[in-house]
Amino acid sequence: MSQTPRQSAERSVPTSADVARLAGVSRATVSYVLNNTSSVRISEPTRRRVREAAEELGYVPHAAARSLRAGHTRMVLLPASASSVGPLYLQFFNELQWALRRLDYTVVQYGSLGLDGDEAARAWAELRPVAVVSLGEVGLTPQGVDILKRSGAKAVITLAPRRVAGAHSLVMDQSEVGGCAVAHLVQRGRRSIGVVMPSEPGLEHFAEPRFEGARRAAAGTGARIVPLALAYDEKSANDLAAGWAGLGLDAVYAYNDEYAMLLMRALQDAGIDIPGRTAVVGADDLLLGRLLRPRLSTVHIDMVTGQLLAELVDRTVRDPNGEPETRDLMGARAVHRESS
Amino acid sequence: MSQTPRQSAERSVPTSADVARLAGVSRATVSYVLNNTSSVRISEPTRRRVREAAEELGYVPHAAARSLRAGHTRMVLLPASASSVGPLYLQFFNELQWALRRLDYTVVQYGSLGLDGDEAARAWAELRPVAVVSLGEVGLTPQGVDILKRSGAKAVITLAPRRVAGAHSLVMDQSEVGGCAVAHLVQRGRRSIGVVMPSEPGLEHFAEPRFEGARRAAAGTGARIVPLALAYDEKSANDLAAGWAGLGLDAVYAYNDEYAMLLMRALQDAGIDIPGRTAVVGADDLLLGRLLRPRLSTVHIDMVTGQLLAELVDRTVRDPNGEPETRDLMGARAVHRESS
Repeated sequence: MSQTPRQSAERSVPTSADVARLAGVSRATVSYVLNNTSSVRISEPTRRRVREAAEELGYVPHAAARSLRAGHTRMVLLPASASSVGPLYLQFFNELQWALRRLDYTVVQYGSLGLDGDEAARAWAELRPVAVVSLGEVGLTPQGVDILKRSGAKAVITLAPRRVAGAHSLVMDQSEVGGCAVAHLVQRGRRSIGVVMPSEPGLEHFAEPRFEGARRAAAGTGARIVPLALAYDEKSANDLAAGWAGLGLDAVYAYNDEYAMLLMRALQDAGIDIPGRTAVVGADDLLLGRLLRPRLSTVHIDMVTGQLLAELVDRTVRDPNGEPETRDLMGARAVHRESS
Repeated sequence: MSQTPRQSAERSVPTSADVARLAGVSRATVSYVLNNTSSVRISEPTRRRVREAAEELGYVPHAAARSLRAGHTRMVLLPASASSVGPLYLQFFNELQWALRRLDYTVVQYGSLGLDGDEAARAWAELRPVAVVSLGEVGLTPQGVDILKRSGAKAVITLAPRRVAGAHSLVMDQSEVGGCAVAHLVQRGRRSIGVVMPSEPGLEHFAEPRFEGARRAAAGTGARIVPLALAYDEKSANDLAAGWAGLGLDAVYAYNDEYAMLLMRALQDAGIDIPGRTAVVGADDLLLGRLLRPRLSTVHIDMVTGQLLAELVDRTVRDPNGEPETRDLMGARAVHRESS
């Protein structure tokens, strides 16, 4: 292997030919050994010699070269989240990664911050993933699904509030979350219900269907629904609390547990009794809700398991011509504690 | 372009040759136009024709093929976090992604859950990134840095508690966080100080140096330091609170604000006055700490900005032969509120 006297960043990158030369075997043998091809019989001493030569030279296979030969990769692309990730989501996400790795996929996340659905699809397609699992922050369109499939993706799976044509759609209908929260409040006799709409960008994909669900749950009950803008900072919460009396609300569904904690604190500081004068409900069933006083009522959301999703990825990669399915995955239920 | 009558997942993937044929230009022209090469003069009508042909066929360039031709990619690889990501980190991370994208890099995150440092380095090297920014969860070794550089990475940057030989090391010495917390408690007259060690895997990279800093800050002051295991659940916190009297502690540094909230609630429920009998300090200066009663004292941590880190990536890619630098980036200070 030729080496310049320059520093390591300038050394030539070792190739499988270098490994073959050092180990005294063919390049095909190097490829079989390092890609763990079990269909070809190679003796253990030869395997060891190849691995030692690769280690000595610092050679690692080139995923891109391998994917060009194979026509596709084992890469599953997941968009990286741009907004704050709760513990619920994180657990799901780690489980999904583990399960995909056990199925011999490489999991790569791609930041899609600031890209719209079709821009994101094109950027993802450049990496030629065999599967894309879109988790709802990017509005993947049918055109985006088509771009991905034309670039060789065998599985495009969306986990989103709505079905996307051409993709396997796991629909998590966020409106059920708002619906559960408001049905709970109405059942407990509340009739004038604020619904917090977070000002932070990216959350509207969740907040808008939740609001819509809240509106539907109130329809015909005589209860009214009032949207309330709230940024995730103390000043915004204190401003809202300062004008609370004028709003005439006896309850609030505060988007999620974190916004609920913020608003409940501001209301308490403004002397508003919770739940006496105003009931508060969050969502996500986080630990923090149980630590608040009064304990926060919430909406518990059942997530799809990472294992189930990984199996769907693998099944679709193996049989890409099945009809795209739509499955409703959302399970939501109100959890009554002390704040409502 | 040949098309089978099968479904889209089975259609042949369009190539730049297909685009060239449809647009009536050479493959080189397609490449120049779609890669925005400014050094070659191509008329606007031709550029438009190429773009329209690419769109019609659903063609996107193949990042892997491009990287094989160029010998490297514009890909910056960031390990994806496996543990819960706080809002502080998330803001930094989004800023880093934006700044790198403005500099025309593609940002890809790689889950390294369950891989040790050298395994992770080999997995990353397979993607042939031009730069790797390791954010401290994976213990990247000098061997790992060498694997990455030999595979063509021009910049390897670590943001970790300790220097890593061969890499640009941005050292965030976590011991300062524990040191600040305990110095604050000692200064306020506390002499018997518990230090929470989270049981959750992955946090030991932060918890252990924080503990070490706590120990050093107490040395010679007459204060004693007691490690306290705590899992992030109510039962663990209630068990710890139930045995609190026996520990004889007058203060606790609770790792971070979230563990502090959990433990403070359990101590309050067990009738222990905060800060009268036990002072509590967290870390991270989250909003939630200001929402608690008593308001939570904390350690404010200055993070490196994403913009600064992106510029370091770009500078190192352009001049990979500079000596690896080590810079201390941690700025930490105690913030006194009501709980201490």
